[in-house]
Amino acid sequence: MSSRIELVGFDGDDTLWRSEDYYRHANAEFEAIVGAYVDLTSSQLRCRLLAAERRNLALFGYGAKSMTLTMVETAIELTESAISARDIHRIVALGKEVLEHPVELLPGVREAAQAIAARHRVVLITKGDLHHQERKVERSGLGDLFHRIEIVSEKDERSYAKVLDEFGMQANAFVMVGNSLRSDIEPVVSLGGWGVHVPYHVTWEHELEHGLEAGHPRVFAVNDAAEIPDAIARCGNVAAPVSI
Amino acid sequence: MSSRIELVGFDGDDTLWRSEDYYRHANAEFEAIVGAYVDLTSSQLRCRLLAAERRNLALFGYGAKSMTLTMVETAIELTESAISARDIHRIVALGKEVLEHPVELLPGVREAAQAIAARHRVVLITKGDLHHQERKVERSGLGDLFHRIEIVSEKDERSYAKVLDEFGMQANAFVMVGNSLRSDIEPVVSLGGWGVHVPYHVTWEHELEHGLEAGHPRVFAVNDAAEIPDAIARCGNVAAPVSI
Repeated sequence: MSSRIELVGFDGDDTLWRSEDYYRHANAEFEAIVGAYVDLTSSQLRCRLLAAERRNLALFGYGAKSMTLTMVETAIELTESAISARDIHRIVALGKEVLEHPVELLPGVREAAQAIAARHRVVLITKGDLHHQERKVERSGLGDLFHRIEIVSEKDERSYAKVLDEFGMQANAFVMVGNSLRSDIEPVVSLGGWGVHVPYHVTWEHELEHGLEAGHPRVFAVNDAAEIPDAIARCGNVAAPVSI
Repeated sequence: MSSRIELVGFDGDDTLWRSEDYYRHANAEFEAIVGAYVDLTSSQLRCRLLAAERRNLALFGYGAKSMTLTMVETAIELTESAISARDIHRIVALGKEVLEHPVELLPGVREAAQAIAARHRVVLITKGDLHHQERKVERSGLGDLFHRIEIVSEKDERSYAKVLDEFGMQANAFVMVGNSLRSDIEPVVSLGGWGVHVPYHVTWEHELEHGLEAGHPRVFAVNDAAEIPDAIARCGNVAAPVSI
């Protein structure tokens, strides 16, 4: 039975290339800098920073610049303005490092993306900082494989519905490949589409919350990029659902 | 003779709604805060900030978050780390004010956009911070008039060519309406399209540099939004060009 899938969406960060590791590194450095001023553990500092990031999300949106501004603000607030300008400068430099890091494709991604692009239309759907994401796409060398790059400010049902609408596509002919159940899989499945979940070894706490039922018949989990083409071939075959 | 224009692009900031005024206000406050530490005039501080913004542009891209990070960095560098955390907090707050300001449509914009949307497909083409721009579109109440919202990281020939390609459109059937000759008019005219220039009372220094010849036959200048529909009606009529 051949797949009825017409369009394949790929997430970028932590699906095609490493990302969260760089954010984690910046956060650990932030904890070390601010920890020298206050009597809080790394874990307490991490919680405070995450709470501040969530508070600022509606105003700032996602991405490294937002994280950096929230780190600066939180450092000043937690130290009750005792932090030195020199240390704030170090925090800004941490953000710049995240923006500047080289784009490192995950193992098997290039081959998998090429194999899929040979059979389907593929689109990159990422959220966050437009400028940063565009630079990463350029540096990844994968830009030519993608029919289009869609950068959305939130990966929710509304954004995916808009993308499908622009392609004139039914949800059941669309599969999204990504590492986040919350952002890449759940909204697409809710619309009636398919999901291929490629877990990454670390996930931002914010992305861990989702309402997807375990073993959903339109979701396939794979261990690495090399397994994605086969998983996509199984999508769209409603007659033979295989649960994860 | 009827116009052959099929698609009308609108810029957002300082064309549909006030924007630069908020940035100017933040910059003036920045100059007052940093000026208390260093022996530099407002004008010198403004030059140093602009130079830093340009240096960071490739890394940060446009927008209020980028400006805020550059203000923080520049304040620390110019004061040789003498600035207090409290004053850095004030600078971060200036950036948040720019992100939070209400969306105030310019006079006549709603009526002009409605009149144009009744006759043509209209698309909003803005650059800068995706999240901030989407929020402004939502709050402007104009979202429904626009066939699509394109947010690009740089308004150059390449970006406009991509938009035209997605619409399957020749450049000479496209007119762009905006306040910046550099970003809104020059690249479109270079591609063979048309421009309606609506000057704003203040323009960011960075936008003042352009290579557009005066009196270009495919560019019309208007004094305010109410004149835009007539100017668009004059575009596309190559037999009767009227210079500005």
